[in-house]
Amino acid sequence: MSAPRADAVAAEVAERGLDALLVAHDVNLRWLTGFTGSNGLAVIGADARVFLTDFRYVEQAADQVDPSFERRRGERDLLEDGRAALPERRPLKLGFDDAHTSVRTHGRLRELLGEDIELVAAAGVIEDLRAVKDADEIALVRTAARIADEALREILDAGLAGRTERAVARALEDAMRDRGAEPSFPTIVAAGAHGALPHAEPRDVEIPAGALVVIDFGAHYQGYCSDCTRTVATGDLDGDARDVYDVVLQAQRAALHAVQPGPEGKEVDAVARDLIAAAGHGDEFGHGLGHGVGLEVHEAPTLSKRGDKHLAAGNVVTVEPGIYAPGRFGVRIEDLVVVTDDGPDVLSSFTKELTDVG
Amino acid sequence: MSAPRADAVAAEVAERGLDALLVAHDVNLRWLTGFTGSNGLAVIGADARVFLTDFRYVEQAADQVDPSFERRRGERDLLEDGRAALPERRPLKLGFDDAHTSVRTHGRLRELLGEDIELVAAAGVIEDLRAVKDADEIALVRTAARIADEALREILDAGLAGRTERAVARALEDAMRDRGAEPSFPTIVAAGAHGALPHAEPRDVEIPAGALVVIDFGAHYQGYCSDCTRTVATGDLDGDARDVYDVVLQAQRAALHAVQPGPEGKEVDAVARDLIAAAGHGDEFGHGLGHGVGLEVHEAPTLSKRGDKHLAAGNVVTVEPGIYAPGRFGVRIEDLVVVTDDGPDVLSSFTKELTDVG
Repeated sequence: MSAPRADAVAAEVAERGLDALLVAHDVNLRWLTGFTGSNGLAVIGADARVFLTDFRYVEQAADQVDPSFERRRGERDLLEDGRAALPERRPLKLGFDDAHTSVRTHGRLRELLGEDIELVAAAGVIEDLRAVKDADEIALVRTAARIADEALREILDAGLAGRTERAVARALEDAMRDRGAEPSFPTIVAAGAHGALPHAEPRDVEIPAGALVVIDFGAHYQGYCSDCTRTVATGDLDGDARDVYDVVLQAQRAALHAVQPGPEGKEVDAVARDLIAAAGHGDEFGHGLGHGVGLEVHEAPTLSKRGDKHLAAGNVVTVEPGIYAPGRFGVRIEDLVVVTDDGPDVLSSFTKELTDVG
Repeated sequence: MSAPRADAVAAEVAERGLDALLVAHDVNLRWLTGFTGSNGLAVIGADARVFLTDFRYVEQAADQVDPSFERRRGERDLLEDGRAALPERRPLKLGFDDAHTSVRTHGRLRELLGEDIELVAAAGVIEDLRAVKDADEIALVRTAARIADEALREILDAGLAGRTERAVARALEDAMRDRGAEPSFPTIVAAGAHGALPHAEPRDVEIPAGALVVIDFGAHYQGYCSDCTRTVATGDLDGDARDVYDVVLQAQRAALHAVQPGPEGKEVDAVARDLIAAAGHGDEFGHGLGHGVGLEVHEAPTLSKRGDKHLAAGNVVTVEPGIYAPGRFGVRIEDLVVVTDDGPDVLSSFTKELTDVG
């Protein structure tokens, strides 16, 4: 019975000197066990592999959960039942996810577990493993990215000028739903000066001719996300918009080439950042270059000034430099890419040449 | 300058013996200040009313945030900047939301604040106040409920038999989007035996004739949620389905009449639960009677066996008893209702008589 994810977690738990780890955060639990319900708890360690859920999800757990886990039905509050699923050794070192456990829940755990069980902060055990995707996961992200690309093609074929940002966002999300996916986050469609806000919300405002339009969107397909940005034109552009576009595209391509096993996230970030700064727009690129994508649309590793992890084969990351000219326009170009030993495997297929969609 | 929400929070903060409260959880921050962005922090107390956000949201905050707050631009990690926004008194008692603050964030706060600032667990300050809605909030929930009702009417007019559960769910969500709302949670459309799972996901399975179909859905409109369930028939029903429907409807109506200022949530729950038990279905009603609805689709107060808060005028709650016959069918009937001194103000207008929609 092969259970590579559970085996990897158990090994890391032992590596950290823990007897067992509690896993309750939904995406971590899904990755570890396959369970997609909203209330579950796993206990995993060298001598422990138990999964608990409540009556609502017992059947679903029987279908979904990695059979290397013993499955138990608990009450709706699983913390109390979780205690009975712990290894019997005392004293016991029990890891918990301090990044996703509230102070209140920690206090309850502390009371329930008693003196001879030590609770040890162990955030990131699963997240670090999740950062390296297996072939099945990459296939799902690839499908999500393909659905997103097809949806974008469909809606750009109808042109943008004269439609409202909100109508375009809705059409793009509907086109993903028509293909069996949901949006992985609220779609951004931001024309002209509105595109200078990196987190703009679509407005009930008609997209004018002669503008740049930033479209940032993704598909969520069978649990996995994609993330893509394109900036397109609605007719001829005034001023330096095309030049700025070219700077972003050059930076994006250079950073993409730097995506390989080895460098730290901040080194890849610097490739784009230095090019944008050299072109005189250093103050106008106010966010990180990219982030991991998988079960969550933002996950490890980080490609930013704070990215101190080395990229590894199997990472799936965005590469998305941008330049934002306040009051005028914004440009962002984002690909989703798999890190491989043979170079970047780009999952986004929509053209990056500046396209006049009318 | 009237700021009734901030004033109410400041009063409760003083009542709890605190000098100030940190508010960061998104819906609490929205309720308190009006801010709808994803990264903000408020400090509120007798001598403190400061709102912080990062560069991305400075303009948005200027538009949205209650002007009784001093607005400051912070870095992306607002905890450090928050320290400078605290009242100067030392020692200082600073409340934090222990239900929404992770152990890790609490540890960082502890380090940043130093010895003479005491962090005091103060979850629920805002939630308790949020449970009583003002007229503007009730108007938004009412609109959300109206949109949901209209959408349900539209899709039931086309009949259900022969369409897949997933297609019906999609059509219902699209009908809400057409009216300017988003779904407040993933829509449930569950026919026949599938309806016996209270949290069923829509399947790519055609709805048969002669079945009961549970439809549980809601609209999210300008931040506020609705929640409604109807169970409808696709043609003539076999066996005791109609009788069970009548038991649920009787229980639902009786509980609705008990919704008024005064009783504890569990007392209202018991009205429905006792009737269902008396009809011999006590084991088949495995969830609480209802819950508060507002900025979140599940919030205070709880109408369940654990509901120990007294209902108050301005609460908005669901009343949703159900009976689930495993392997056969489910029935759930849910209204959204405002608690008023003049009796229940029911926001759900769709008929509760068993309807054959074909």
